[in-house]
Amino acid sequence: MKVEFWFEFASTYSFLSAMRLPDIAARRDIEILWRPFLLGPIFTSQGLTSSPFSVYPIKGRYMWRDVERRAKRLGLAFRQPERFPHNGLLAARVATAAPPGTAMTRFCQAVYEAEFVHGCDISDRLTISTCAKAARLSSDVIDRAASDDIKQQLRKTTEDAQTRGIFGAPSFTVGNELFWGDDRLEDALDWAKAHG
Amino acid sequence: MKVEFWFEFASTYSFLSAMRLPDIAARRDIEILWRPFLLGPIFTSQGLTSSPFSVYPIKGRYMWRDVERRAKRLGLAFRQPERFPHNGLLAARVATAAPPGTAMTRFCQAVYEAEFVHGCDISDRLTISTCAKAARLSSDVIDRAASDDIKQQLRKTTEDAQTRGIFGAPSFTVGNELFWGDDRLEDALDWAKAHG
Repeated sequence: MKVEFWFEFASTYSFLSAMRLPDIAARRDIEILWRPFLLGPIFTSQGLTSSPFSVYPIKGRYMWRDVERRAKRLGLAFRQPERFPHNGLLAARVATAAPPGTAMTRFCQAVYEAEFVHGCDISDRLTISTCAKAARLSSDVIDRAASDDIKQQLRKTTEDAQTRGIFGAPSFTVGNELFWGDDRLEDALDWAKAHG
Repeated sequence: MKVEFWFEFASTYSFLSAMRLPDIAARRDIEILWRPFLLGPIFTSQGLTSSPFSVYPIKGRYMWRDVERRAKRLGLAFRQPERFPHNGLLAARVATAAPPGTAMTRFCQAVYEAEFVHGCDISDRLTISTCAKAARLSSDVIDRAASDDIKQQLRKTTEDAQTRGIFGAPSFTVGNELFWGDDRLEDALDWAKAHG
């Protein structure tokens, strides 16, 4: 059974999952559908004005330490960016415009590295086009990302996420089964194997 | 190095940790200090009027399914109680009054089973005295739990939790290092071993 991976470019724990998921899924021979979406509208519909990590600073402080520890454990480079959360809209549109496959997942990883390793602004067009080039996406992807069709597709993915009960990122779905958080990645893959 | 286990009797994920922690800690030969505290005052100081699972119902719905799945995976009996969250004040006072040791941890587990397996009201004195008896706590523990000294001790533990940056339960501390959530239990024990 396929696993759908729902991620938001502003999300620290999505970063952890995006970096480690391709290898784990390949080892276990599980197909992953990458689903970039926006958390903003979902937070707003819950009455949250920003990320819970900003709304509840005590939780935010813990999150940074936790992500730092987890990244170290996973052997991933990580540096807390100066601002948080970043605006992941442009990156999400480009990821939506990119055809599924290795170049698309490499693009997503490049964006996360730009944001959480190098401290770049991922709402900047130059940052995103550099990531697209590094991932070998076709050169017109940034322009296509600005089309009404892609904007509408991203809106639809975000609505789908909400319909499935998704409220945070990363999330994983296997059929109707929902798993929330980087620490449920293995559970989601186990579920897919057991219920394949 | 010792691990401090911070738990709240109303908390579903604290239930999971309380049931599995004694065996895991014994196998790894790590000393655990059980720290019952109250989340209510900590939620209030963050501007939350209740458990985040009640304030954000979409998160609450996910939590019940997640706990059900986790309990099954851990081989623990579990049934979603009719009401949530329960008032864990009486149980926390009795756990505070009980001397540390096997009877105290057995009492905590009995309370969690009463709440999350049998659907009992843990604010009820009869429920709690039955748990105390089953755990072989001394018969005066319920009366001692109502003393000013114990009330003050529980207030102090809750203040300590807040000072350490604790905002949810279960939490684990190893020195100044904080771990939040049942899914960080193993990380906390690993940390204690590595930094012992």
